[in-house]
Formats: sequence, structure tokens, C-alpha cells
Amino acid sequence: MFEFEITRRCPGTAARAGRLQTPHGEIITPVFMPVGTQASVKAMLPRDLLEAGAQVVLANTYHLYLRPGADLIREAGGLHAFMGWTRPILTDSGGFQVFSLEGRVAEDGVRFKSHVDGSSHLFTPEKATHIQNALGADIIMAFDECSPYPCGPERARAAMERTHRWARRCIEAHRREDQALFGIVQGGVHAELRRESADYIAALGLPGVAIGGLSVGEPKETMYGVLDGLMPRLPVDRPRYLMGVGSLDCLVEAVHRGVDMFDCVLQTRMGRMGAAVTEKGRVVLRNAACARDFSPIDEGCDCYACRNFTRAYIRHLIKAGEMLAAQLITIHNIRYTLRFMERMREAIAQGTFADFRDRFLKTWEY
Amino acid sequence: MFEFEITRRCPGTAARAGRLQTPHGEIITPVFMPVGTQASVKAMLPRDLLEAGAQVVLANTYHLYLRPGADLIREAGGLHAFMGWTRPILTDSGGFQVFSLEGRVAEDGVRFKSHVDGSSHLFTPEKATHIQNALGADIIMAFDECSPYPCGPERARAAMERTHRWARRCIEAHRREDQALFGIVQGGVHAELRRESADYIAALGLPGVAIGGLSVGEPKETMYGVLDGLMPRLPVDRPRYLMGVGSLDCLVEAVHRGVDMFDCVLQTRMGRMGAAVTEKGRVVLRNAACARDFSPIDEGCDCYACRNFTRAYIRHLIKAGEMLAAQLITIHNIRYTLRFMERMREAIAQGTFADFRDRFLKTWEY
Repeated sequence: MFEFEITRRCPGTAARAGRLQTPHGEIITPVFMPVGTQASVKAMLPRDLLEAGAQVVLANTYHLYLRPGADLIREAGGLHAFMGWTRPILTDSGGFQVFSLEGRVAEDGVRFKSHVDGSSHLFTPEKATHIQNALGADIIMAFDECSPYPCGPERARAAMERTHRWARRCIEAHRREDQALFGIVQGGVHAELRRESADYIAALGLPGVAIGGLSVGEPKETMYGVLDGLMPRLPVDRPRYLMGVGSLDCLVEAVHRGVDMFDCVLQTRMGRMGAAVTEKGRVVLRNAACARDFSPIDEGCDCYACRNFTRAYIRHLIKAGEMLAAQLITIHNIRYTLRFMERMREAIAQGTFADFRDRFLKTWEY
Repeated sequence: MFEFEITRRCPGTAARAGRLQTPHGEIITPVFMPVGTQASVKAMLPRDLLEAGAQVVLANTYHLYLRPGADLIREAGGLHAFMGWTRPILTDSGGFQVFSLEGRVAEDGVRFKSHVDGSSHLFTPEKATHIQNALGADIIMAFDECSPYPCGPERARAAMERTHRWARRCIEAHRREDQALFGIVQGGVHAELRRESADYIAALGLPGVAIGGLSVGEPKETMYGVLDGLMPRLPVDRPRYLMGVGSLDCLVEAVHRGVDMFDCVLQTRMGRMGAAVTEKGRVVLRNAACARDFSPIDEGCDCYACRNFTRAYIRHLIKAGEMLAAQLITIHNIRYTLRFMERMREAIAQGTFADFRDRFLKTWEY
């Protein structure tokens, strides 16, 4: 059901292209997954996402558990039916959200307060798994403990070991064969812990392995160093998912190190803030410099916004408080990023990814 | 350039179907014009509007004059190019907006304070016309003085007579043959004033006549009474535009009395408030009754929202504060209203509009 096939490798880099089968269709990797936290990728119609080339979207167990509730989504026929998305979905386990909310962690699970109404809730590995079983995403994630940054080796080890124990409990609790459960590697920025965690999670034989706990405040170079250490320990025949990472430079660097899957809220969040993603860095459309700029966000972009509207118009929409600004910039940011992934896949297929990376890093400014 | 042809009349009613030529294409009447106050129909992509069947959109001179300014829009190549809308556009003159802002009216024009930055501005008939010439809409409106409701006959007469004098000044100031200038009938709710105004504006020989100053707080029956009195005085061979009116019952009653064109913010405003337009009345999707309602907003509707999403999902989006709620409900409200217009046009073509109206009024509840 979740066969993963590496279709291309590329000389001079660990980058690889592949395809992952899921009940709702095939995912071509490396892939970027737009984030639909509350069962909606903010400001985009699902058909805008299809047009942009989205293969799979991510939704959040924590948010959907609190509102509208997993029972309601099950009644609706599962998350795909509920949100009108027929392609694959991945749900994360809520581990990262309850970490962000500073929930109280114990061996059984994490107690946290709802951001909606302040009520108290307990997530355990079993509960996070059963909720995800009810939601019905194609790929579900183990419930993990994310260590903060910075974090000393003792605390990072404790979180990592708990993550390992919890991964076993998630496997035990998981009930549906039509959902792939991915394990999560933790270990902070400590190379040895990361290697130990990679070995442990790899040994569980799960259909996919995620790298959690990165992009939580550490310098990018540190993140790349962690990847350098742990990537060679991950099973080559399973998809590797770097959680919560999505700026273009990080995408290139992680693909270069053999990562297959990504998600990030950056694109949609920037869309609502009035900033556009381009390969030369971000374009702050709110700025006065765009007031009389009658060119598109990006000359080379094929998105609906760039084909039809100017920077001047979008800036006007931002200043006027029109929702259309967020709609157009988000469409651009998502399409631009997905096309960037397409171009990386093509470069891998043609054996030119190392060149692609070199060229990209020369023009990139952030 | 602005030929208007009546294609059908219907027995037992003054309803008529027609077509109006404009530089950006033909408008089939009776027509509803979605409102894009600030050069955007709120929460809708222009392609969503095309799909919904929008033939023409309205934009506001007052708003665009203040932000981003008429010069900038002229530099952009005019309003069509600026907002990426290739079909016809109508701009109103700003008369209604400065009236709503309680501007200081004198014979020369209206002095008002900007809602954006509080700065003081003067709109004269000449200025309102020249701004509209710069914006470049297909149809532009005379600058008028709208009387409030309630309003005694002396004050209503003064506003009406000023509107007449201003209409002549607008005709004088108007510079572009590729724009049709419509006159506006005023006169409050006073039947005699309305008839006098209709006769006066009709005699100007303009390519279209609008009815202003209605739907400003008076009971609907009063509005219908005003229409009964004035419609027979308008030239039969020119389009008649009832400004700011758009609830389904008013659309039916005004078409019945021979109105050809409408605009209203109701559909888009309701969309952002979480309420959907249907022929049986509004559906308040925010309500708990919709929480587990897995049916579409309207079973018979062919809009993107009704074809793909349930009331339960849309309610979730509202509760979760997701923009997608406004996007989907607005798409529905606009498409539903435009389809309602299509059905009225078909009924007129088939000579069954009187039946259509009877059936509608039986099921309508608001």
C-alpha cells in the first residue's frame, strides 16, 4: 500500500527522486506539503491548490481534535471528505503543538490547555494515534517529544528516549492498514543523539521516517550539520520527512542531503503578511517601492497571480485591507515553492542537481 | 457603442430582457453587478467571478480616488488592466459615499473628509466625472445628491434639483466617447418628485438612467411604490439601473417593474458574516444547527462551494476563523444571485415571469 520507490539518484549529492504510493494517490518526491492546520490551507480554495500542483497537504491533529473534533470529522466521512481534498493528506500527531503550548510532559503523555477555550486535555501516544485513525489521513505521525533550542544533552536525551518509547506505543495503538505511521527522530542538535535516534527509529521498520525538532530556533548551519550526521543512518528505501522546514535555501540543502518530504507554514503566513517568495529572496509587496511597479511578483512565475496581476495592484489590495491580497500572494507562494520542487526533481532526473544547488546559492539573498 | 436592445417583453408584467453593448463586451439584462468597492470583489478571485457568470462589476470612484488614486490607475492602463478584469466595469460617482460620510453639500460640490486619513477633499460634478474618465469604466455615473430617509419634500426637492443641475455639469465635463454616462433620478420617496426627476433625467438623452436614493432605510413597499410611479416615465429604450438594491425579493419586484440593472454589497457582506443567500431565505452557517449538517448550502446550487463542501465544513471554517469560509460563502452568494438573474431572464424569454414571481414570493421568507 505504501510502496516507496527511488526513481533517480544524482551524482555529487545525496539528492534522490522517488514515488510513494498512498490510498489517495501517488506522491512524487522530493515533495513540499502545504499546511492546512485547521483543514484549510489558509486563503486558498482546494482547487487553487490542485492548480498549484499540490500533491499532499498536512493537517494538524491537535487543532482538529479541539475543533471541530475527531468524531465530527469521522461522521463526515473522514478528513478527505470533510475538507473536500481527494489527494493524500498527512496529519501530524500534535506533539509539536503541545510542545509549543508548553504542555506538562510525563511518561504517560502531555497535559495541555486548549488555545480555544483554556480547557485541560491529555494527549498520550495512544490517543494521538487513535485520533489520527479517526481523521483518516494517508500518513500519520508518531507522538513525539520535541526538545527546545537550546537544550543540553541530558534533557535532549530524555526527550529522545521518551520519543522512542512513545513510538512503540503508537505502533501498538495504530489500527488502520490504510494509513502509514511514520516514526520521528529527535535528539536536539546533538550529533550523537541524532545518530542514536536515527538508528532506533530506523530499526522500527516503519514505512517512513521523519526528522523532528529542527528549525526550532537553531542556526541553519547547525541544522545542516545535524542532517549531515543523521541522514546516512536512515533507511535508504523509506521516505524521509524533515518536519516544519520550507524556506527555499533549506529545501535545497535538505534535498541535497537526501530528504524527500517537507512542510512549512512560511509560504501561507508570508502570504497573509504581504510578502512573496522568490528565488532572489522575499518581495515585500507592502513596501512603497511596489506602489507603481506594474510588473508581476515574479516575471518567470506561471502562477495565477503572476499571470494576471501586478505588484502595484497587490500592494493596493494590502493597503486597502482586501482579502484578495492574501489570496493572490498565497497562491503565488505555494505555486512558486511547488514549482521549485518540480525543478529540483527535474534536476535530479537529469543528474544536474549539484549545479542547480550551486546556481541557487549564488543568487539567493535573504 | 452603447446600443441597448430589448430582446423580450413578458405579458402581465413590465419585466423585459435586453442586451447592452459596451467596449468590453455585451451585458445581458436584467443583470446583477457584484460590487468591487476598492477594485476587488471581496474574497473572490476574478476567475471565481467569471465562473460565477459575472458580466460586469461595479467599483467606487470615491474609494479609488482616495486609494490608490486615479493617476496610478491611469498609469496602470485603466481600471480593467489594474484589477485584471476584462469584462465591463461600472463606476459610481462617489455621490452616495460622500452622502454616507455626511459631507458638506454646496452648489459647487461636496466637501468631505477621507475615511482613510481624515484629509479634506472636494468632489464636484466635474471632478467626479474626470476621475471616472481616468479610471476608464465602461459605464460611469453622474454625480448626484442623495436625500436621506426620512426626508421632507422641500429638502428632497432641493437635492433633486441640484442633482439635475449637476447632471448637466457632468455631461459637460465628460470627455470619453468610450464611456457611457448614466443620469440618476432622485426625489426621495415622494411620488411627484420622482416623476419630475424621471422626466428631467429622461430628457437629457443619456444612454442609461439610474434610480438613486432608494434602499436607504425606507420600507420595501415604499420603494416598490416609488418604482410604480416613476418607471413608466423612463425611456423604454434605455437601460434602467436601480442602485444599491440586491436582496432576491427586491430583485424580483424591481425586474417586475422594468428594472434592468442592479448592484448590491449584500451578497459579499453576508459572505464575510457567515450567512448564505438562498431562495428560501438566508442560511446562517455560523449557527450550531449546521455543526453536523453534511449537506451543501443549497442542494440545487451549482456553485463551487455547493458542489464540493458541506455546511458542517463551512461552519467549522467560520468557528476556526479561516478565510476560506468567507471565500466559499461569497462564491455561493454571488453565483446563487447570478443564477437567479439567469432564471429571471429565462422566465422573461419564455413569457412566464409573472408565474416565476408568484412562485418565488410564496416560498420567500426573510
